[in-house]
Amino acid sequence: MNSFGTLFRLTSWGESHGPAIGGVIDGCPAGLTLDEAAIAAQLARRRTGQGALTSARREADALLFRSGLFEGRTTGTPIAFEVANEDAKSEHYEALRDLYRPSHADFTYEAKYGLRDHRGGGRASARETVARVVAGTIAEQLLREQFGVEIVAWVSSVANISSSVDADSVTRAEVDRSAVRCPDLAAAAAMEAEIVAARSEGDTVGGTISCVARGVPAGWGEPVFGKLEAELARAMLSLPACKGFESGSGFDGARMRGSAHNDPFVRDGDRIATTTNHAGGIQGGISNGAPVIFRAAFKPVATHFQPQQTVTRDGQATTFAATGRHDPCVLPRAVPMVEAMAALTLLDAALLQRARTGR
Amino acid sequence: MNSFGTLFRLTSWGESHGPAIGGVIDGCPAGLTLDEAAIAAQLARRRTGQGALTSARREADALLFRSGLFEGRTTGTPIAFEVANEDAKSEHYEALRDLYRPSHADFTYEAKYGLRDHRGGGRASARETVARVVAGTIAEQLLREQFGVEIVAWVSSVANISSSVDADSVTRAEVDRSAVRCPDLAAAAAMEAEIVAARSEGDTVGGTISCVARGVPAGWGEPVFGKLEAELARAMLSLPACKGFESGSGFDGARMRGSAHNDPFVRDGDRIATTTNHAGGIQGGISNGAPVIFRAAFKPVATHFQPQQTVTRDGQATTFAATGRHDPCVLPRAVPMVEAMAALTLLDAALLQRARTGR
Amino acid sequence: MNSFGTLFRLTSWGESHGPAIGGVIDGCPAGLTLDEAAIAAQLARRRTGQGALTSARREADALLFRSGLFEGRTTGTPIAFEVANEDAKSEHYEALRDLYRPSHADFTYEAKYGLRDHRGGGRASARETVARVVAGTIAEQLLREQFGVEIVAWVSSVANISSSVDADSVTRAEVDRSAVRCPDLAAAAAMEAEIVAARSEGDTVGGTISCVARGVPAGWGEPVFGKLEAELARAMLSLPACKGFESGSGFDGARMRGSAHNDPFVRDGDRIATTTNHAGGIQGGISNGAPVIFRAAFKPVATHFQPQQTVTRDGQATTFAATGRHDPCVLPRAVPMVEAMAALTLLDAALLQRARTGR
Amino acid sequence: MNSFGTLFRLTSWGESHGPAIGGVIDGCPAGLTLDEAAIAAQLARRRTGQGALTSARREADALLFRSGLFEGRTTGTPIAFEVANEDAKSEHYEALRDLYRPSHADFTYEAKYGLRDHRGGGRASARETVARVVAGTIAEQLLREQFGVEIVAWVSSVANISSSVDADSVTRAEVDRSAVRCPDLAAAAAMEAEIVAARSEGDTVGGTISCVARGVPAGWGEPVFGKLEAELARAMLSLPACKGFESGSGFDGARMRGSAHNDPFVRDGDRIATTTNHAGGIQGGISNGAPVIFRAAFKPVATHFQPQQTVTRDGQATTFAATGRHDPCVLPRAVPMVEAMAALTLLDAALLQRARTGR
Repeated sequence: MNSFGTLFRLTSWGESHGPAIGGVIDGCPAGLTLDEAAIAAQLARRRTGQGALTSARREADALLFRSGLFEGRTTGTPIAFEVANEDAKSEHYEALRDLYRPSHADFTYEAKYGLRDHRGGGRASARETVARVVAGTIAEQLLREQFGVEIVAWVSSVANISSSVDADSVTRAEVDRSAVRCPDLAAAAAMEAEIVAARSEGDTVGGTISCVARGVPAGWGEPVFGKLEAELARAMLSLPACKGFESGSGFDGARMRGSAHNDPFVRDGDRIATTTNHAGGIQGGISNGAPVIFRAAFKPVATHFQPQQTVTRDGQATTFAATGRHDPCVLPRAVPMVEAMAALTLLDAALLQRARTGR
Repeated sequence: MNSFGTLFRLTSWGESHGPAIGGVIDGCPAGLTLDEAAIAAQLARRRTGQGALTSARREADALLFRSGLFEGRTTGTPIAFEVANEDAKSEHYEALRDLYRPSHADFTYEAKYGLRDHRGGGRASARETVARVVAGTIAEQLLREQFGVEIVAWVSSVANISSSVDADSVTRAEVDRSAVRCPDLAAAAAMEAEIVAARSEGDTVGGTISCVARGVPAGWGEPVFGKLEAELARAMLSLPACKGFESGSGFDGARMRGSAHNDPFVRDGDRIATTTNHAGGIQGGISNGAPVIFRAAFKPVATHFQPQQTVTRDGQATTFAATGRHDPCVLPRAVPMVEAMAALTLLDAALLQRARTGR
Repeated sequence: MNSFGTLFRLTSWGESHGPAIGGVIDGCPAGLTLDEAAIAAQLARRRTGQGALTSARREADALLFRSGLFEGRTTGTPIAFEVANEDAKSEHYEALRDLYRPSHADFTYEAKYGLRDHRGGGRASARETVARVVAGTIAEQLLREQFGVEIVAWVSSVANISSSVDADSVTRAEVDRSAVRCPDLAAAAAMEAEIVAARSEGDTVGGTISCVARGVPAGWGEPVFGKLEAELARAMLSLPACKGFESGSGFDGARMRGSAHNDPFVRDGDRIATTTNHAGGIQGGISNGAPVIFRAAFKPVATHFQPQQTVTRDGQATTFAATGRHDPCVLPRAVPMVEAMAALTLLDAALLQRARTGR
Repeated sequence: MNSFGTLFRLTSWGESHGPAIGGVIDGCPAGLTLDEAAIAAQLARRRTGQGALTSARREADALLFRSGLFEGRTTGTPIAFEVANEDAKSEHYEALRDLYRPSHADFTYEAKYGLRDHRGGGRASARETVARVVAGTIAEQLLREQFGVEIVAWVSSVANISSSVDADSVTRAEVDRSAVRCPDLAAAAAMEAEIVAARSEGDTVGGTISCVARGVPAGWGEPVFGKLEAELARAMLSLPACKGFESGSGFDGARMRGSAHNDPFVRDGDRIATTTNHAGGIQGGISNGAPVIFRAAFKPVATHFQPQQTVTRDGQATTFAATGRHDPCVLPRAVPMVEAMAALTLLDAALLQRARTGR
């Protein structure tokens, strides 16, 4: 199922070592002048080869629009786009044709489909997220221009290293001050040291990304099955390597007493606000006007450089040792992916609400 | 959005203090003799009034089928069902008409819809999960009879008290040995003490529920947006009070090194298995044949009995003090809800795979 | 597939001889005071027992709302409703248990599902349209109040008898001046004579229904697959006994030259209009501001009283002779069904457009 | 709304004068070796420049697959494809920028979206059907190989000239014996004369296309809203210039008596058949095992060469006279479009049925 969204719908296609990654956006409002610089910026943040922390695969990520634009503006018809795959060294993957890399999708794709494109992970490669970032950044533009919403994500933990960040004020510029994309610079330094240490041992690390959407008005979200946090959870868990999601206080909140967890209501000028935000801006599945805050957990990168036990396609035991270019930590590059999926989710909620109310 | 599922689709309706909670199941295969005892059993586990740990609202939960059955079997046409609401004391809620209870959905429903049914939480009440449990238990029956899948959920933590449970073997009977539905009886005793302590202080607690689906074959799940864990996450976060989801090692896994986290493949008779299951039975969004394991976090119950600061509908500060019948802990009753949503999610994945392969 | 619509979605349930026909409306805007008199009026027009032309089954059609309303207004949550089935004489149908009535759905339901509820046609009975009429009349109210749209359908032909009606001005009151619901009274008289003649021979007739929606603004419809006439066609062909659809000039238009068929544009005050309306108000799948006009064909009623050749379930040749109450002509009762499906289709198009533009 | 289908889903993109027309197929079963010759053949039948009857625009229609194939077989992941637009003379259309061509979608696209790509009709051009033909021919291959279904369409009337064709036996080769694609060669000659006559007057004609699907088993179609004929109707009416649909006896059947229209059941070897097929192979919205037969009406081509009255974008009256290359009759080229849409519709119905039954 390669479509996401009801009213602003991305359909995504492409494999890691195919000619391109692309997508079709159906339902984009007409008359929008696309902020191509913003898209390029988010693609750059998603890109590998950004320094010691990420892999060296070079991706130019030149974005090509094929339809849906006329004289620089969206026409309301489907926006097809693609980003060519360059520098894909498929021969590196020939050794993988007949074995299953542990904790990759090699085995499950073959179990599901009966065959697989083994080159670079095929469709299961994180390379597919290029399409999400393109569409998500367009969604972000609409959210910003038509609804006044601003989204910022950052790396909130790597391995055991946590950080402290003010979700009400953090900016994307602050996030980008460190290579690891953690705006708590002390934590960032420790995270980077941890990543370098793991890499030096041929190992990899995981971590978490936090995300805030500020300016979301009260009223977005579609109970009981399309609750805003349910849709955000689905969006995050659809990202490669994502294994967890929490909204507001999340798992920590499950350890609190109700008397401490509840968010008291107060009057704040002419609107109603809460004095705390354990709810993460969502109550009963509907935004309450406070910042929408959530966190996603990413497992450590499956491709490390230590020898691993596995089996071949015909069931023979073998040892797998990775070669080539691989990130020791996917977190910094996942920040724009999280922002993109948040934007797609929130925009759809916004449009559904506008359908019913005209606002 | 009150429908769930693509091929086996539940549409749900009803408010806490309306005449009934009901649903329509569209797409149920024909010829099935419904296991009504199983549905009644799950409704009983969902019910309040089960002892000291839950509220005293009495719910007979008599289930009425209105269509889709003929001479005891499903006909393939929509199965409409309903469960009457009894013992609903709406007058208890009259005081709530004009104020917003903290951390309830009173404010957000009104912000979204412009008005709300204030009686008992209306549509935002956990009472709506009756429909999920009915449909989910039918889905569970299909999974068991047609696909050999078995689902068991249990309370894995309450407040700060964790438990140790073997997901590969735990049974529903073991789960039900304690009132708190934790099969680790030592932990169960501590959990129950914690709940009683909270109640005695007029307070409430949260916790987590773990769930395993055994017998899921390799190949279920629809990348890249309908990944099995993405759909499970959405299903769980759509439950009332659920604020977190993790699959397999989840948030803890995000703190591990890749070399420790990866699940080695081995041959196991004529199939391929993993020696560990950090993946929770899902790789690349597709089941791998190992037990599917996940965990959901529930915030503490919002209705406690200590005085709380809030505002009225016209923005005046006021103090809210709850009266009436309320659970200090929702976890034991949420166990069948989690099982139901897991079943609905897995059955839909099974049917999607069968559509393409005939198996 | 028993749901219709994307944003205003009806899910329908119920069999002819089950306890009730019902539905759930998901996505109805909040704050609406339902026009129950309008619903009752349309149900009355759909009802049997309206005189010599229709069958004598008595249907009180008392409508019961079960959710989604509070203090007389819609709350934005699912509106569940049902209409009890009364006077269902299932024993009349016992003879049908083991044979397939010609040109009914007995055989195909059994082929599809492996079993069927033979009583009164089960789910295949036109009785299911009760749910469509209820939901469609609510959709009509929203179209009228929020978008200024008015829908009128009428019987435009019976057997070989055609009529002449001005679609720009015809009213529902004019339609109801004749029992056959044809506002061309001369034609109506001939139609009624034809129906009575057929009945006297134990036979049945078919015909066509025309429908106009006035006040539809330019801009509704979702090319290329959700074109307005495509959605209307699907809506009509989903009605029992409907076998044809045409939009604007339709099949007759296919015989015209382009120079005669094209609709010239002219300025009409501050808007742009066409001097003719061969397009039926839709160009490129999008409404153009002219009245939306279409026509649906209904086959003759399958249940006539002459002996018919058929087979039993085990393939033995047999003769079937109908007994009981049956309409010789379904057309007059289908008028509100057509209006209801038109309303559901148009409202969904209106909401989709509002989602993107705020209007 | 540019997606079609639930389980085998085409998402289409592209404008007439953009760089390409393309599509993404999601849900294609894995392991299929695409019959590229069949696709090329259908694209060739859809193409212009096939002689005196169609326009002279030259379209090479080279098909490029971008994803979803590996070593010649489908992988189960999205199949992206595109066909470059060549020989597009946008300057011919500059005159159209500021006026609305009668009976084209110029005005409605602008009313809906606020702007439009005026070059060659933009998205409203029949050029978009290239994507339908590609995806539909793949669907046809699956229907043939996995379900034994064969689809043949032909031009059954042009202007007032009808034809007589045996739907039970007609082949695609017979259809292609005449340039007008009518297998009744006497009628074909008359049709061609009529088209040439219209062209000589600078005028255009319409007509109808009939289609049969043989080998459809009993049991496809999803009542009550996804009835097989409802989905076919939607599919046809989504085609450019299509204004009518009828299934089986259709509008003619509406003039028949029930006693003449009903299709008697008989035993035919070990299956149950009907002696006539007024139903067009569909009863109660479900296929009955007889050939599925339907007909679609196409209005005369809107672009003729006689002067026409119209208005400019700012409402000034003007005269429009077409120049350039235009078909006097779209029917012959629409034959593969009808086959493609029929295939997409039937395959989806087949997969839905297989999801529930495994067959």
